[in-house]
Amino acid sequence: MTSTTEFRVRYAETDQMGVVYHANYLVWCEIGRTDFIRGLGTPYAELERRNVALAVVEAAMRFHSAARYDELIRVTTTLRKARSRMITFDYRIENAETGKLLVSASTTLASLTRDGKPISLPPELRKTLENAVAS
Amino acid sequence: MTSTTEFRVRYAETDQMGVVYHANYLVWCEIGRTDFIRGLGTPYAELERRNVALAVVEAAMRFHSAARYDELIRVTTTLRKARSRMITFDYRIENAETGKLLVSASTTLASLTRDGKPISLPPELRKTLENAVAS
Amino acid sequence: MTSTTEFRVRYAETDQMGVVYHANYLVWCEIGRTDFIRGLGTPYAELERRNVALAVVEAAMRFHSAARYDELIRVTTTLRKARSRMITFDYRIENAETGKLLVSASTTLASLTRDGKPISLPPELRKTLENAVAS
Amino acid sequence: MTSTTEFRVRYAETDQMGVVYHANYLVWCEIGRTDFIRGLGTPYAELERRNVALAVVEAAMRFHSAARYDELIRVTTTLRKARSRMITFDYRIENAETGKLLVSASTTLASLTRDGKPISLPPELRKTLENAVAS
Repeated sequence: MTSTTEFRVRYAETDQMGVVYHANYLVWCEIGRTDFIRGLGTPYAELERRNVALAVVEAAMRFHSAARYDELIRVTTTLRKARSRMITFDYRIENAETGKLLVSASTTLASLTRDGKPISLPPELRKTLENAVAS
Repeated sequence: MTSTTEFRVRYAETDQMGVVYHANYLVWCEIGRTDFIRGLGTPYAELERRNVALAVVEAAMRFHSAARYDELIRVTTTLRKARSRMITFDYRIENAETGKLLVSASTTLASLTRDGKPISLPPELRKTLENAVAS
Repeated sequence: MTSTTEFRVRYAETDQMGVVYHANYLVWCEIGRTDFIRGLGTPYAELERRNVALAVVEAAMRFHSAARYDELIRVTTTLRKARSRMITFDYRIENAETGKLLVSASTTLASLTRDGKPISLPPELRKTLENAVAS
Repeated sequence: MTSTTEFRVRYAETDQMGVVYHANYLVWCEIGRTDFIRGLGTPYAELERRNVALAVVEAAMRFHSAARYDELIRVTTTLRKARSRMITFDYRIENAETGKLLVSASTTLASLTRDGKPISLPPELRKTLENAVAS
């Protein structure tokens, strides 16, 4: 499965270099991930209500070109790996109009209880995730 | 009582106008307020553990001059009013080296339980706050 | 003229009280304002390229009810006043599905050169703005 | 050379999981880096005035344990590599009171002109950086 999300760069996201401040791309990855999970049928907000939290345990980003204020952005999210307690997403962030690659990133998330203890993903969610892994 | 806090402007806080993005001054007010409350003897984190949350219900800001990256900032916080369920803080944000006024602001906070229900401040905290009101 | 914008609350916008951190509503006002100005025919990014910056000089907010993660938000923006060097916007931030009022706010912006000097708005922009003032 | 910076976690930096939102650790790395560069004798703000910008081109983070509101944080920054157009920093983010490791990270920065074109670092800065590489 592949999920795409589009939105415009906010003024608040720029810095004095005149481009998007680099930490904000991680926020955009999270938006992509939220839409990916929603696409599987269970919004992440619902998962948290069921006491499953997905916490980022690793992140890697490569910044190819800078995004600018008001630019239309597209985040394409795919699932690379789904294990019982750990899943890895890949992200491609690009200009939605030209397709120009801005940032490529990946994050690994661990399944935790709300108290921060590791826990296996609920079996049906795990199955859904395994089926959604990019082939 | 008056509380002062100093820190440097972060790069992340600037925007493409080359100055601090205006919403960040509200974050700085919160830093000033946190230090004010700590100065009263009970850190705000401790208040939340006792199930008292202070939620901002009103804010007003006047932007006099823009703060810039790496500038040393001073936030001076005073308490204007303390009622049983509502307190109002005033803030003066200035350049710590020149004393130049950057932003003046005030916020009113309501006392809530963690579930968001209005609740009177614990009596001893209310007394402490009343004694700390600027005269 | 009235402009409306809709988007979902980002996880990054929440705080440990479980609701949207109050400073983020100012960012949402800016999103509303950006869309309002785009609706007039000249994106704000284009204004900056023509050396006109609109800097927030005053802001007032009233927080009625808290927004939560993943909630669909609607920002309705209207123009209250347009002078040669100063314009005032009003914002109503609500839950897009229920219409429940979350935050009402207003900001006043001054027209500046990129170097931060006050300057009159270009006459054609001023006329457009005056025609867009809410009646 | 090693640079350490200490500060408290801001309320604005938490999310509804009750811990620091992961993207904020990148902001903290930048604070550590700023102090490291200041320690070399030339504040980064001064570098930008001389038309040298250091843009993050790669970032990697490992989240070991979550930081919480009001916790005292220490960021220890070291320089791993300094080339003519590229430098790599390592960061250790820990609880300043217990020394508990929270996040380890590294970022690679490219030297750019303000227009975003790659440029070699000024020779004296490069020499200073090379001498500051951790051995």
